[in-house]
Amino acid sequence: MAKLRVHNFSMSLDGYVAGPDQSLEDPLGVGAEALHEWIFATPSGRAMLGEDRGDAVRSADDDFFEAGDRNIGATIMGRNMFGPVRGEWGASDWRGWWGPNPPYHHPVFVLTHHAHDPVEMEGGTTFHFVTDGIESALARATEAAGGRDIRLGGGASVVRQYLEAGLVDELHLPVVPVLLGSGERIFTGDAHQLEGYTADIVSSPAVAHVVFTRR
Amino acid sequence: MAKLRVHNFSMSLDGYVAGPDQSLEDPLGVGAEALHEWIFATPSGRAMLGEDRGDAVRSADDDFFEAGDRNIGATIMGRNMFGPVRGEWGASDWRGWWGPNPPYHHPVFVLTHHAHDPVEMEGGTTFHFVTDGIESALARATEAAGGRDIRLGGGASVVRQYLEAGLVDELHLPVVPVLLGSGERIFTGDAHQLEGYTADIVSSPAVAHVVFTRR
Repeated sequence: MAKLRVHNFSMSLDGYVAGPDQSLEDPLGVGAEALHEWIFATPSGRAMLGEDRGDAVRSADDDFFEAGDRNIGATIMGRNMFGPVRGEWGASDWRGWWGPNPPYHHPVFVLTHHAHDPVEMEGGTTFHFVTDGIESALARATEAAGGRDIRLGGGASVVRQYLEAGLVDELHLPVVPVLLGSGERIFTGDAHQLEGYTADIVSSPAVAHVVFTRR
Repeated sequence: MAKLRVHNFSMSLDGYVAGPDQSLEDPLGVGAEALHEWIFATPSGRAMLGEDRGDAVRSADDDFFEAGDRNIGATIMGRNMFGPVRGEWGASDWRGWWGPNPPYHHPVFVLTHHAHDPVEMEGGTTFHFVTDGIESALARATEAAGGRDIRLGGGASVVRQYLEAGLVDELHLPVVPVLLGSGERIFTGDAHQLEGYTADIVSSPAVAHVVFTRR
């Protein structure tokens, strides 16, 4: 069975997965870069940025970061993760945050209320736009993944919706010991949100990797 | 210099250090026992409960739990941690949650707005009641500790007050991968609450121990 997996979904110690005031300049909100510094300290994170891997030392962080790409055949994401355009698409020719060759290299299903033709990019990534809900997106992604797993990219509200529907098989939350003070939470007052999951923790000096796996 | 230290101050993954609806039956609020299960799984935690240490295996959890008693000469706590009586003490003869021989064995300074004579217990614990604020309590505890450190016991509002005053030297927050859904938070919207501290993380399979140390 193909699994729906969330990886590298960093959360601050005060519970925020995105900062306040998201914008074109700050797509993850103000201060949220502190949530992702651990990634850019790893050899694979540096390579993703096109930087020399340098003398960065491999740690548990690398293993977790790289696990997010392993055996993934399709990705699902919310519209805000795809881009800053809100409401009707209109004349927008936005093609994602990632340039002509996005780092997916497989079909990506973008949840939206507004229909949009598929956008084919270089390197095997095609963005498909799904207007009939999270279960439909999962069905289409499962079909497209051809037996491999599906990665649920975010943002917070999309992950919450799939959690509430009981559809997430694995949730990797790196807890970063910083405070954002405000922003977007993934846990919003429901003590039962993770019932039926087992939790495991592995830490590096900078991050506590908490992994929830559906029993 | 004597240090003010917070230890074993467990927090849920959604940020709560106490559950909702605190009462005589649920002094830490509903569901909060899940925050402390890691303690009762350690040999020292079992011994504290008067239980056989059994075949419990030592782990990082034991080291953290025991570190909370090391080189401590006095304790400071909020009134709600001392007991459930609110407002004027009146005819109450409440002497703490811990029976005749509390596990402190040193002077304990209870922050309250209502004066109360000291209460001397067996085993070296005396409860003193401080009505003129957190700095006064720290000065008195420092004096009483005779060169040893001072432990800040809780609850959340007392820890927050000392953090905001910049008086906490060490904060050990075990992050437990459970959700409480509601209750009392220690981080309440100030992104600067831990500025000037370095963070270290050590995890056991059940708990991510985050330790903030003032630079």
